[in-house]
Amino acid sequence: MKLNHIGIIVKNIEEYKRLFSTIGLDKITVPACDTIQKVKGIFVDLGFDNQAHIELLEPTDETSPVMNFLKKRGGGLYHICFEVEDIEKKSEELVKKGLKMVCPPVDCFAYDENFNRTCSLPTRIAFFMLSDRLLIELLEKGK
Amino acid sequence: MKLNHIGIIVKNIEEYKRLFSTIGLDKITVPACDTIQKVKGIFVDLGFDNQAHIELLEPTDETSPVMNFLKKRGGGLYHICFEVEDIEKKSEELVKKGLKMVCPPVDCFAYDENFNRTCSLPTRIAFFMLSDRLLIELLEKGK
Repeated sequence: MKLNHIGIIVKNIEEYKRLFSTIGLDKITVPACDTIQKVKGIFVDLGFDNQAHIELLEPTDETSPVMNFLKKRGGGLYHICFEVEDIEKKSEELVKKGLKMVCPPVDCFAYDENFNRTCSLPTRIAFFMLSDRLLIELLEKGK
Repeated sequence: MKLNHIGIIVKNIEEYKRLFSTIGLDKITVPACDTIQKVKGIFVDLGFDNQAHIELLEPTDETSPVMNFLKKRGGGLYHICFEVEDIEKKSEELVKKGLKMVCPPVDCFAYDENFNRTCSLPTRIAFFMLSDRLLIELLEKGK
């Protein structure tokens, strides 16, 4: 599976945009849409083909599932996301293998820098615990 | 900067090798040598050109700097590592920009599957706090 992004929970996205900019990573890509985590999300592009992005996620709601992580740990590295061809099939496979499915596949849309949708079909994402310490996301790209 | 790997602190590398194998990631690459963190380390290869690895790190000593993270949090995602051309220059630059240098550049060697050195020049690594919640590693590849 291809690595799509690494998610980092932050209290303030603007602060982290500045920090990443400090180390030379100032290319911010499309905002993420995450209906599960109730977050504002952006991607930091590392500027190499085939490379993963870094996703910065700031909870927008007290009921966001990541709010607990932010309050308890102050944020930080949170999950890793892999691209899959068929998210339904892969999810089913992982459940059969005994992984805990935190969230079954749901739709989300990609946007450009002007917040216009860049795809007609939604990206689909799902979340699993690989272990009780490692959250992984599966992502099937929309077209 | 190119993403080289994502580090995960684990209690037991064998357990995580099995877990990653469960989701189809069973290609384990060269062991890492980490004189700073006092850890046993291996890399999970995602099987795509130009993609980052996942590094699994198991502390081998009670005095390992990562032991506290393991005891307090039970392990999990720990750091992200970027490749740089000139680690001395980049480290100096980051210090000037106000980043906290946790560990200045030091040598470490890469090995093949038979634990033979695969390079004549050591890889050099250094650690910085991008924020108080995000540890980053710089890596200059040996030849």
